[in-house]
Amino acid sequence: MKKIIILGSTGSIGIQTLDIVRENRGDLVVTALAAGSNIILLEKQIREFGPKIVCVFKEDKAKQLRENIRDLAVKVVTGMDGLIECATEQEADTVVTAFVGMIGILPTIEAIKSGKNIALANKETLVTAGHIIMPLVKAKKVSLLPVDSEHSAIFQSLHGEDKKSADKIILTASGGPFRGRKLAELKNIGPKDALKHPNWTMGQKITIDSATMVNKGLEVMEAGWLFDMPLNKIQVVVHPQSIIHSMVEYIDGGIMAQLGIPDMKLPIQYALFYPDRKPLIHGERIDFTKIKQLTFEEPDMNTFFGLKLAYEAGSLGGSMPTVYNAANEWAVAEFLKEKIDFLAIPTLIGEAMKHHKIIQDPSLEEILETEQNTYEFVKNLTKS
Amino acid sequence: MKKIIILGSTGSIGIQTLDIVRENRGDLVVTALAAGSNIILLEKQIREFGPKIVCVFKEDKAKQLRENIRDLAVKVVTGMDGLIECATEQEADTVVTAFVGMIGILPTIEAIKSGKNIALANKETLVTAGHIIMPLVKAKKVSLLPVDSEHSAIFQSLHGEDKKSADKIILTASGGPFRGRKLAELKNIGPKDALKHPNWTMGQKITIDSATMVNKGLEVMEAGWLFDMPLNKIQVVVHPQSIIHSMVEYIDGGIMAQLGIPDMKLPIQYALFYPDRKPLIHGERIDFTKIKQLTFEEPDMNTFFGLKLAYEAGSLGGSMPTVYNAANEWAVAEFLKEKIDFLAIPTLIGEAMKHHKIIQDPSLEEILETEQNTYEFVKNLTKS
Repeated sequence: MKKIIILGSTGSIGIQTLDIVRENRGDLVVTALAAGSNIILLEKQIREFGPKIVCVFKEDKAKQLRENIRDLAVKVVTGMDGLIECATEQEADTVVTAFVGMIGILPTIEAIKSGKNIALANKETLVTAGHIIMPLVKAKKVSLLPVDSEHSAIFQSLHGEDKKSADKIILTASGGPFRGRKLAELKNIGPKDALKHPNWTMGQKITIDSATMVNKGLEVMEAGWLFDMPLNKIQVVVHPQSIIHSMVEYIDGGIMAQLGIPDMKLPIQYALFYPDRKPLIHGERIDFTKIKQLTFEEPDMNTFFGLKLAYEAGSLGGSMPTVYNAANEWAVAEFLKEKIDFLAIPTLIGEAMKHHKIIQDPSLEEILETEQNTYEFVKNLTKS
Repeated sequence: MKKIIILGSTGSIGIQTLDIVRENRGDLVVTALAAGSNIILLEKQIREFGPKIVCVFKEDKAKQLRENIRDLAVKVVTGMDGLIECATEQEADTVVTAFVGMIGILPTIEAIKSGKNIALANKETLVTAGHIIMPLVKAKKVSLLPVDSEHSAIFQSLHGEDKKSADKIILTASGGPFRGRKLAELKNIGPKDALKHPNWTMGQKITIDSATMVNKGLEVMEAGWLFDMPLNKIQVVVHPQSIIHSMVEYIDGGIMAQLGIPDMKLPIQYALFYPDRKPLIHGERIDFTKIKQLTFEEPDMNTFFGLKLAYEAGSLGGSMPTVYNAANEWAVAEFLKEKIDFLAIPTLIGEAMKHHKIIQDPSLEEILETEQNTYEFVKNLTKS
């Protein structure tokens, strides 16, 4: 029986993780759940999965939830302290970190410190604090298992191999809803268009990141940390069908790849049961005779210059990836409110990076400070 | 330093194996070579690679070679006894079995008995005697490493995984030079047309087998033995670009695949250095942005009914795969001599199978007897 904690249980990944728990009652149990503010869904999850402790980040919402579940013996905590209490719940062995944003970093660090394995679904953790997380994972001898479909594919393609003979990572990208368009055609894009992803059903933030290819940029940086690979050895290849989830090229020229139907439950389940595989309930299978073809293109880094900036930010390192991420986070939120243009997203990232003076090897405090400074900077920039 | 024996050193696989030895002088050395009759090339190989013992299967040719290399201290042996002496040369740890035909089986058995690892490039070995070979491999705790690109890909896709969670093998096929044609269009095919393979440069026999898809049929049966997989769990998918060399589908729906440029040196080298990977000298790399697309089709088992017959022969088991193989071997030889039609190849296989009474669990003697009887049967059939 595997005991798991889910940070971000009411988000897309959290919900799908609970689907897998539901389908594997005999093998998985939930000891703690954490959500931001969606206490309606969280209450349902509590009543179905019976965790011992739950965290609602927003204090007023936590208070309300306590009222609503007075009939249950569940501890309700709140804020960052509450989140950490959830992330380190004693009985659990694995924490699924599915919170979006920097909020996930500190609980992840504390979970690692308390010896938990991490099923990582939070991109910001490694992008901004890879230099803190990776040595800690090694020191604490815990597993850091990627939940992202691309990183899971890379992980699977490396499984059983000598990591030293891996020569290159080939990270596939769907290209998003605007693949093939040129800069001029992206000027009048609104949130509605950008939220239509061709292959994946995901949260809003990540869907916009997919449309700008900033998501792929974050994945490049994340892959660099996860697999200890220099960024010039990580190639993004556009593969619109999202069937090959990513690949690893070895020194002999042989390539190992993981393929599957685009379904996040596959990498989530893989991370939860690793190194075992279990049947994926309700999972679809690929039929190659129906797929007919898989296609590949070079990414258009002039149009999707947010991806190019990710290589720059990642290669510069230090606090620069935090700037990249924070500027994007702020810009996407503004875009969803229809306050800025689609192309303003990568433009603001570039401006923020230009303005930033890199802090080498930043502490978590410096990372969070850099995030706030970046928010301020892009805010002022769009005001004027 | 790995010491290897090559049975069939003057054939396509043998020559490419020696290319790899040449490129890895510090890691590989040849202790024995065996050839059928090409003593001109064999002499060159002896002078370059300095084996201790060589076998020339044909006695008169062996005699002539002895004359030609009087200046060298190399032992020249002949016949089946000579072949076995080569296959069990004491110092070597790995035997590359690259002989075409049933001639390779007994030396392979003797090599396994003497504790050698086998790099298997002879299809007949497992197709006809899998029930003898596989238990012996287990008992002697040696490795049986496939050299065929498809089986190597499957082997690599299984590496590091729990074999029990493998649900299905997806064996890719180029479809050969006549892919897309219908039965009526294959009537007037001559050896020249059939010898034009779109992707692979191989020996004549295997190139014809590729054109009839009998090669894929033999591979299905071989995969069944190698990976302990029932034939209804081995799916052939036509993939004309020969980039995905084969795949394994797991119980969770995830698929692991091995990809590469069509180059036999990749699987040969993988087998020689397994579990390590070494840079492939002069090896090409895949550039997905240049490949553009990979396509897939269902195999046309009505036109290429030799493939369908392979599933039947393999499922029936016992001595039936030997009949399939022997009838094909004889028919291909006749076809190359322009004595029978292209479509007569699978037709003769079918006739021979219909006529045969299965011997369950045949001994090696019974296998060889079945082979001879099948030769006789198809010979008589074409005479009348």
